[in-house]
Amino acid sequence: MNKDLLERISLINERINTLKYGAEPDELYEPIRYIMSLGGKRMRPLLVMLAYELFKNDPDKVIDQAIAVEVFHNFTLMHDDIMDEAPLRRGKATVHEKWDANTAILSGDVMLVQAYDLLMDAPGDLRAILKDFNACAAGVCEGQQFDMNFETLPTVAEETYINMIRLKTAVLLGFSLKLGAMLAGAKSEQADSLYEFGVSIGIGFQLKDDLLDVYADQAKFGKQVGGDIIANKKTFLLLKALELANDDQKARLDHWLAATSFDKTEKVAAVTAIYDEIGIGELTREKINQWFFKGFEALEKLETAPGRKDALTDFTRYLIDREK
Amino acid sequence: MNKDLLERISLINERINTLKYGAEPDELYEPIRYIMSLGGKRMRPLLVMLAYELFKNDPDKVIDQAIAVEVFHNFTLMHDDIMDEAPLRRGKATVHEKWDANTAILSGDVMLVQAYDLLMDAPGDLRAILKDFNACAAGVCEGQQFDMNFETLPTVAEETYINMIRLKTAVLLGFSLKLGAMLAGAKSEQADSLYEFGVSIGIGFQLKDDLLDVYADQAKFGKQVGGDIIANKKTFLLLKALELANDDQKARLDHWLAATSFDKTEKVAAVTAIYDEIGIGELTREKINQWFFKGFEALEKLETAPGRKDALTDFTRYLIDREK
Repeated sequence: MNKDLLERISLINERINTLKYGAEPDELYEPIRYIMSLGGKRMRPLLVMLAYELFKNDPDKVIDQAIAVEVFHNFTLMHDDIMDEAPLRRGKATVHEKWDANTAILSGDVMLVQAYDLLMDAPGDLRAILKDFNACAAGVCEGQQFDMNFETLPTVAEETYINMIRLKTAVLLGFSLKLGAMLAGAKSEQADSLYEFGVSIGIGFQLKDDLLDVYADQAKFGKQVGGDIIANKKTFLLLKALELANDDQKARLDHWLAATSFDKTEKVAAVTAIYDEIGIGELTREKINQWFFKGFEALEKLETAPGRKDALTDFTRYLIDREK
Repeated sequence: MNKDLLERISLINERINTLKYGAEPDELYEPIRYIMSLGGKRMRPLLVMLAYELFKNDPDKVIDQAIAVEVFHNFTLMHDDIMDEAPLRRGKATVHEKWDANTAILSGDVMLVQAYDLLMDAPGDLRAILKDFNACAAGVCEGQQFDMNFETLPTVAEETYINMIRLKTAVLLGFSLKLGAMLAGAKSEQADSLYEFGVSIGIGFQLKDDLLDVYADQAKFGKQVGGDIIANKKTFLLLKALELANDDQKARLDHWLAATSFDKTEKVAAVTAIYDEIGIGELTREKINQWFFKGFEALEKLETAPGRKDALTDFTRYLIDREK
């Protein structure tokens, strides 16, 4: 990532570190400070700032609104982790593990309120911004519910899966970018182009996540390669494999999906081998490129002053090329 | 309750029945329709309308904002019921019992978003309204956390308890009334007086809840009298009894609080007898009257056209006199 982007991320992290979430009770506010301190790419607030900077030069003016999106994102993580019974988040204990589920429910609730509160002093049309935020927030909840529903189904169609990740992941990236544009007072067509761009790269981003979980370089990945395979997670790779496998491949895949006691390394190697035979990695890479390409098409349509798009383009390249 | 009030409640219930919460997935939206259909006094939206009608004549214009508060209230019930492991709500299965905890978490989350969304087309200063709503919503979460904290403490001081119910229950009644005033374009002193009124009667209302749980007429109460005693719930009555009991009374009280296996009817009778000896019922009635009186003082300060306050006064009288 280049220096300009890293500087903006520092700005975001500094502001996060000084945020006052609330005084007491401690049990309510300490988990918020904890999850917000775990780091992460800060991709969403960065997108708010980069979109704002397509039109204006003072991104520090919208830092609170940028952070609103990060607080919202971390609220969804806190609640999703309860639902998914996840023990770890960014290598540290999740809130419901470190405290308990009740704490994670209630701290998450107050985080959602705080996300709204950080939007309050937004320059521009607050009503329009909040209507979009509401639609986005409801969409994210719908995506999470669809994702949970999928766990109980034998398989789901590609289109259905893409719609789920659109809701669960991509609409928030789209909203982040549109928010930046709205805060800068951009025209509604400009804000809409950025939303389309964000949704498309958001889908590409999530598919890349699915891909890396199987095909990342373990030395660079930071978490265990093959985690999704071990957990039978219905990723794009598994769904396409179930769709495209021949009888023999399908039988082997079903064997590993049904296995209740197995050697993890062996399962990961065996399922990856099936993916390789079918060409799932290549197929997923193509699909990722298609979504990012679709995103760039929307970005090209957007009219801005010369050179203004460079930082956003650089960041998107980083998302495409990332190895973790 | 008089005819005018009942008509407004009908209006509220009709609008609730036609609300579109969202299309799919069903697992997300069906629990919202379910909890909203369970009924209840609809006290909060009624307060919004009654406050609005202190100044204006077209309460149907603010029906969606009134219902926003009811949706928010039911969101807190859905999440509180998970935390309290409550099996029943208004005599029906709670959402986490009828579905599961994950469903109740996620449906609750989307309800909070919908509460905000119902406020969007509010007449008046949206930013000011939402800032107050945010503060109120965070306060309600703080109150719930304090309430849960109290369960692990041997006892808490009266002041500490009153602060908890102020946050958990009263600030939302205060906000409901202030919202009605803000929607009507009332002056800020008028809105503030109504907030003070609402908080005071909200505390009185919750203390009355505590009182009725022990001293209600079983034939009229609708749920089991003594439920709080059976569950060792730290109500105002128990806390005052712990504070004022002599050594003998304290020993008997401690015996029943520590008992793990007991006859429910016997425990309720024994603890109620201790309350009677100490005079807890009378003391609580006095305290309730003090808070309602404080509320009426704030309401008297409020300047409105003649006769405008009658409906609000009638409703408050109903809250004071209620037997369930």
